[in-house]
Amino acid sequence: MCEIPAVPTYERIRIRYGETDQMGHAYYGNYALWLEQARGTWCRERGFTYKSLEEQGVYLPCVELHVRYKGEVRYDDWISVEITLGEIRRASMRFDYKIINETLGKLTTEGYTWHVTMNGETRKAMSVPPFVRDMLLRDPNVTATAE
Amino acid sequence: MCEIPAVPTYERIRIRYGETDQMGHAYYGNYALWLEQARGTWCRERGFTYKSLEEQGVYLPCVELHVRYKGEVRYDDWISVEITLGEIRRASMRFDYKIINETLGKLTTEGYTWHVTMNGETRKAMSVPPFVRDMLLRDPNVTATAE
Amino acid sequence: MCEIPAVPTYERIRIRYGETDQMGHAYYGNYALWLEQARGTWCRERGFTYKSLEEQGVYLPCVELHVRYKGEVRYDDWISVEITLGEIRRASMRFDYKIINETLGKLTTEGYTWHVTMNGETRKAMSVPPFVRDMLLRDPNVTATAE
Amino acid sequence: MCEIPAVPTYERIRIRYGETDQMGHAYYGNYALWLEQARGTWCRERGFTYKSLEEQGVYLPCVELHVRYKGEVRYDDWISVEITLGEIRRASMRFDYKIINETLGKLTTEGYTWHVTMNGETRKAMSVPPFVRDMLLRDPNVTATAE
Repeated sequence: MCEIPAVPTYERIRIRYGETDQMGHAYYGNYALWLEQARGTWCRERGFTYKSLEEQGVYLPCVELHVRYKGEVRYDDWISVEITLGEIRRASMRFDYKIINETLGKLTTEGYTWHVTMNGETRKAMSVPPFVRDMLLRDPNVTATAE
Repeated sequence: MCEIPAVPTYERIRIRYGETDQMGHAYYGNYALWLEQARGTWCRERGFTYKSLEEQGVYLPCVELHVRYKGEVRYDDWISVEITLGEIRRASMRFDYKIINETLGKLTTEGYTWHVTMNGETRKAMSVPPFVRDMLLRDPNVTATAE
Repeated sequence: MCEIPAVPTYERIRIRYGETDQMGHAYYGNYALWLEQARGTWCRERGFTYKSLEEQGVYLPCVELHVRYKGEVRYDDWISVEITLGEIRRASMRFDYKIINETLGKLTTEGYTWHVTMNGETRKAMSVPPFVRDMLLRDPNVTATAE
Repeated sequence: MCEIPAVPTYERIRIRYGETDQMGHAYYGNYALWLEQARGTWCRERGFTYKSLEEQGVYLPCVELHVRYKGEVRYDDWISVEITLGEIRRASMRFDYKIINETLGKLTTEGYTWHVTMNGETRKAMSVPPFVRDMLLRDPNVTATAE
């Protein structure tokens, strides 16, 4: 069992008008975009980009999404997405998320996503390659952030 | 305990180009739009529209979303969303979904959403109003479909 | 100069909740999705699919978009997108659109899009291949609709 | 005729994965979200927020959108949206945009949007209220930025 450095990454996002719906809240499907953006920053803080992973033939499609909406997120609110890597298995990994609505000063959302490692050419699932596992387990405090 | 007529509703949707991402699949956040569209049709088959509910001051914001992505959905694929009402509680309800990719002939997605009843004016949660409960429990086979 | 059969194609679409914004209208960027869906149907009525074009290495990226929003489109409205091929040049083509809000019985939107033919492998612009030009000029009244 | 301070505002945005499509580019409809985000920042640099305008009953729905796509925008690219107020009329205004793909170092997009002033209660068009006109004509170099 590998131990995962429990270092969260934070991504601040301002809500767009087009992300709201007629109820006046952010539409529930748009949260997926913010979780994805947070994953991008999570990688970057560990010295690599998700884009570079794909260029090396490793894709991380999402196979499970869970979101609990506990409070409101509205247009022009600032949210902060706290993301941590919760678990790595042989061929998959889970990210955990907490969204703080900074404008309201409240935790508004919790969730997680599971991702599998997919070979970009064969489009088949594969084990997490060792070089990817190493990057995922990096401590951002001792790694240079990618651009 | 009320018994829910276990009559599923089916909504067929063709995947848009703008719903794909560079991986060549439908983006994982866009499924929320299809589940929502299926809920609209579910209501309609029971003789009312979600729009009319809001006009009567009853909103059904989603408070929990769960999706398991088991197979691919691609541009121009036809999917069929099977939706059933799984549970009604005092102030909330759960819908269950299965997405069949008709183009591939495979079950590709499973999920559920929890919704609370919200008073449109006070923006507070409230018990499911009796007239709403009655509509939710209608058997579509003995109810005229709404336009 | 080739003459284009001035046969419009119509695509009916019901507006999704997630396509609205807090103003209560459909968000102005989402119209692009409906124009795209109409283009897909336009191809289909001429016996081919845009998907099959891409599989043959011919992409039609949009290089210009113009939309005039003259009236409202709201959640659950039915719209009908009327699309015609307005012009074909050596390496590009223009589609023209009119959106009728059927729920209101009013013309609500007008617009056009220009597309270039792009070689899918080299990612370079190219002349409209003759087999594509032939398909674009088909009269849907004498062509079987693609699935 | 009023003279508009020709001071551009710049908004930097990193492209999300969910904003791409299977062609590997950003989907043409998603640019509308970036233009909107730039408008929000444009207001903020002039000491007010679009949100506060709506709270005061003044809405600025888009009535015309024009976009010319001249180059590529891809996942993880940084773009910079340059926005200027091009014209104010009695009851409408035009914003002009240039998008620089910073990752490529190239101008990739040009466009404009027309907006009318709408009374939030009556939902009717109205003249640009004097207090709004004053704010629109502010010079950001002599105005404190809104939060």
